[in-house]
Amino acid sequence: MTITVYELDGVDDVRFSPYCWRTLMALKHKGIDDFERVPVSFRDRSPIAFSGQERIPVLVDGDHWVNDSWNIACYLEDAYPDGPALFGSDIGRSQAQFVNAWTQRIQNPGLINIVLWDAFQAVDPADRDWWREDREKMFGRIEDYKENQSEKLTAWRRDLDPLRMTLGDQPFLGGQAPAYVDYLVFGTFLFACYVGREDVIEADDSLQDWLGRLLDMFDGFARQAPKTMTSER
Amino acid sequence: MTITVYELDGVDDVRFSPYCWRTLMALKHKGIDDFERVPVSFRDRSPIAFSGQERIPVLVDGDHWVNDSWNIACYLEDAYPDGPALFGSDIGRSQAQFVNAWTQRIQNPGLINIVLWDAFQAVDPADRDWWREDREKMFGRIEDYKENQSEKLTAWRRDLDPLRMTLGDQPFLGGQAPAYVDYLVFGTFLFACYVGREDVIEADDSLQDWLGRLLDMFDGFARQAPKTMTSER
Repeated sequence: MTITVYELDGVDDVRFSPYCWRTLMALKHKGIDDFERVPVSFRDRSPIAFSGQERIPVLVDGDHWVNDSWNIACYLEDAYPDGPALFGSDIGRSQAQFVNAWTQRIQNPGLINIVLWDAFQAVDPADRDWWREDREKMFGRIEDYKENQSEKLTAWRRDLDPLRMTLGDQPFLGGQAPAYVDYLVFGTFLFACYVGREDVIEADDSLQDWLGRLLDMFDGFARQAPKTMTSER
Repeated sequence: MTITVYELDGVDDVRFSPYCWRTLMALKHKGIDDFERVPVSFRDRSPIAFSGQERIPVLVDGDHWVNDSWNIACYLEDAYPDGPALFGSDIGRSQAQFVNAWTQRIQNPGLINIVLWDAFQAVDPADRDWWREDREKMFGRIEDYKENQSEKLTAWRRDLDPLRMTLGDQPFLGGQAPAYVDYLVFGTFLFACYVGREDVIEADDSLQDWLGRLLDMFDGFARQAPKTMTSER
């Protein structure tokens, strides 16, 4: 049975959605390689009209569909218990909610504050009017995000200290192997990379080792979006 | 076989060490009630001289001793597998390191920045010279911490947002029941309470529900330090 993932699509087929990356990495983690990726544009969600809602990613497995990357991870863990564990236990699943909340309240907003303008450039030109209107409701004028990058970067990098401390003692947030908590955090860094802002993490940052390990997973799967990451890593 | 916990002691027998509280709560969580609490003063660590080191807490179980609250939690999980799980799985244990790192880099330093002066008042007068010299090496002049409380509190309370978001969906960080991650974070709030600064968490903060649940655990064990918490809760 083939699984289908509906994911957001940017300019030139760039896939930068952090939430879609969480789902893609979770599928690979479960050893599921036989899935189809269907690009959906920001302005036209008709490919997921069958779900009666507009949130992406959507995963379809046979006659069952699930939306929301967290729900999809839980679905995969429960429906594919023989693959490597994403959470490891009920406690692990509940604990992952704290990492999820940390990405939602600290890691993501801080990054968006730095790269919103760059993200706009990665949106398909045909989607930009829609995207600007949608995002400016939440964030205000996109152009303003070109300002004061240096201070915002310094603050955001400092906010990542708990990650550095954790990864100083173990190769992955999940321990000796990655778990869903790694993909929660990694998705946001991939978003930065795919909007052309790999520089938000400095070259000598200790997080680079962990990023490199995740980029290498599954034969370098995350380097191909399907547009390949442009920089040498 | 009786377990002994060596814990730091403040003025009038107040026990405010967040790390000792982690250990005490972990013992209760495992269903171990038959343990002895031995107070150790800041300036005189001779009661733990047998361990050849000065860090507290120290747990002694028969002829085995362990120091460092994290190591003690791991020891209890492995030595008492029949009691309720503290971590639930290897992934759960590794994930708890992120919460541990978050407390070390965000929750604790931010709180110390607010309550260091209050903590000094909770130190036994006989220990204060030792304590001032030791802490001022790390933090600078203790008196300076009486200043700018309002701004520091606002920033620190905002840093707790990932906790609020997580606990909006589940009663404990560990899920339906507390896990070691709860005690990691709870220990720091107990520290605030036992140095007389319960006000760092506002009365209408949604975190109060979770704090109340943990204070109620084990017949209200954490309200007794052995000096009972002074305020009505």
